[in-house]
Amino acid sequence: MAVQKITLFEQEPLDLVFGGRLDHIEVAYQTYGELNADKSNVVLLCHALTGDAEPYSTEPNSTGWWQNFMGKRLAFDTDKYFFICSNVLGGCKGTTGPASINPQTGKPYGGQFPNVIVQDLVRVQKALLDALQISHLHAVVGGSFGGMQATQWAIYYPDFVDNVVNLCSSLTFSAEAIGFNHVMRQAILNDPNFNAGDYYDGEPPAKGLAIARMLGMLTYRTDIQLAKAFGRATKAEGQYWGDWFQVESYLTYQGKKFLDRFDANSYLHLLRALDLYDPAVGFDNIKTALARIKARYTLVAVTNDQLFKINDLRKSKVLLEQSQVNLQYFEFASDYGHDAFLVDYDIFESKIRAGLENANTPPASTMIEFMI
Amino acid sequence: MAVQKITLFEQEPLDLVFGGRLDHIEVAYQTYGELNADKSNVVLLCHALTGDAEPYSTEPNSTGWWQNFMGKRLAFDTDKYFFICSNVLGGCKGTTGPASINPQTGKPYGGQFPNVIVQDLVRVQKALLDALQISHLHAVVGGSFGGMQATQWAIYYPDFVDNVVNLCSSLTFSAEAIGFNHVMRQAILNDPNFNAGDYYDGEPPAKGLAIARMLGMLTYRTDIQLAKAFGRATKAEGQYWGDWFQVESYLTYQGKKFLDRFDANSYLHLLRALDLYDPAVGFDNIKTALARIKARYTLVAVTNDQLFKINDLRKSKVLLEQSQVNLQYFEFASDYGHDAFLVDYDIFESKIRAGLENANTPPASTMIEFMI
Repeated sequence: MAVQKITLFEQEPLDLVFGGRLDHIEVAYQTYGELNADKSNVVLLCHALTGDAEPYSTEPNSTGWWQNFMGKRLAFDTDKYFFICSNVLGGCKGTTGPASINPQTGKPYGGQFPNVIVQDLVRVQKALLDALQISHLHAVVGGSFGGMQATQWAIYYPDFVDNVVNLCSSLTFSAEAIGFNHVMRQAILNDPNFNAGDYYDGEPPAKGLAIARMLGMLTYRTDIQLAKAFGRATKAEGQYWGDWFQVESYLTYQGKKFLDRFDANSYLHLLRALDLYDPAVGFDNIKTALARIKARYTLVAVTNDQLFKINDLRKSKVLLEQSQVNLQYFEFASDYGHDAFLVDYDIFESKIRAGLENANTPPASTMIEFMI
Repeated sequence: MAVQKITLFEQEPLDLVFGGRLDHIEVAYQTYGELNADKSNVVLLCHALTGDAEPYSTEPNSTGWWQNFMGKRLAFDTDKYFFICSNVLGGCKGTTGPASINPQTGKPYGGQFPNVIVQDLVRVQKALLDALQISHLHAVVGGSFGGMQATQWAIYYPDFVDNVVNLCSSLTFSAEAIGFNHVMRQAILNDPNFNAGDYYDGEPPAKGLAIARMLGMLTYRTDIQLAKAFGRATKAEGQYWGDWFQVESYLTYQGKKFLDRFDANSYLHLLRALDLYDPAVGFDNIKTALARIKARYTLVAVTNDQLFKINDLRKSKVLLEQSQVNLQYFEFASDYGHDAFLVDYDIFESKIRAGLENANTPPASTMIEFMI
């Protein structure tokens, strides 16, 4: 089924937290499973940085980003729940973003697209649910950037959400991670085709975006996984300054593949939204914000995550506990590092189930598995 | 004292391992301490990727890269040893490199500079010692890229070297680390000023080089150190796409500062030499190569090194032991990560002393300290 579209904020514009406003916001979304009679089985899925509205694809030769996690009796059980997923504001997969036509000029927003933060993204998701006449969520689930959205849902709308499941994401982004994002952004900004974001009439900043993506890939995996997959193997006809080693060829391929599916301006905006996410925005401090959460909160940490480091996950755990959030915390190792929440179904299945199943859940607790 | 210069390979050119040859190689070097009567107190210091011939500077308002490690009764004890340090072949701090004038064309080598690997660099260092009439080394010491040179010294010239001290460096570079180097190289190659390496008549690829350096800096430190130094502090007048956070401002500053002291072509060549270092080159396999080592070998690993990961240091330890090398191995944590060998004197002092002091040394052993 093709992605569905809806236009929101037609009567009143959305005033953005950092200033600026947007109206006629188009939102791409998808649903899976059946809504039950009392509408009590709705689960909102929030995608990560470069995801889209379709975690599961029904198209032939196409796979969604949680394809193997979703289906009858799987972690995201389509026999039980009604799932809704939408592309984020500022993205480029059907929801209004920098590549969309600005209704006031008839041209793409480009460099004029306003700055958006996680709080804005969540308010658009809330408007979508209102339009769909969904007045309660059994759960909000997200990994990485999606985990930040899930957290913000429970802060903004504490009575709306019963469960939050946050995978591989700390409450705020670390200095080191901001640093990686900074390098990625500079690679795009310095591309000769960038043109202050107004490149839709010409060549896009493809090389800069590919460099940014290659760096991202390195933070999403681990040294262990890359050593197993590539080691120091070389290519038969490698170029000295290009793809001499197999791992370089892999990164180059990933960088190029990304160009077909993502817009550089969206990448810039969403990277910055990652950096800037702070639950405290609009509240006295982070604990005041977290104390608003009424949902049961499941936090899943990967010890060898190289983007959201385990130190920061543990600090988040402590902050949630100090804010009296009903928390269950899991921690384990995976060679996949940060990407584990997208690929390591065997490890994540039980944690996602524990996060979604209110009935017969174990008491809130800390469970640490050592798997390496 | 100004750096000293000597011209080598005037009669016979140096045939490089990867093909190509160089003659009239100029080498910048510096010495510290006094050569004793029987020339038995010579220690060769090998610099890391962007180092130079002067670990200690006697100039006012200037500090060498091991300034705090060297002096009377310090780890590098100038009362005891005669230290020699030279800038590597391919560098840009006085020794022949891509920015040097090619005697055959009268212009800078630029894109024509031949590919050099660690084995070539070490043969130039050996030629320097021959010219200085040094026929034996008490020790060769190096960190990171310098540790690779130190290892190669003991493989090529097993009777010449009594002690090897290798700090924060594995025997080969990992797939992940090659990946980071790949991203850095692509940032330089994609700079509009790069011009296939022939940019000395115009503007250098400054932005690309700065991006590369910023990424390097992130691998040299740790999330812990950056969190302590910067956290999520913002700048008073930050630019949304520029230096919004303090950590971005720090990286931008480091990137710009690097432009004053380093050449993009040298950076490309030395990064590639890091990737390509393999002790097995010219031998049947790595164990055959390592089995040539007669020197006592000290390997110092930092558990939270983000460039040379601890898994690779431990594999190197095992390989050296399996090759019957007389090994002493230290392992400890430092918030400084990879850069610890340049800044964390308190931790490194005892290990460097243990590596240099043949007399009254403890038996070869594994010593693991947990300091975090």
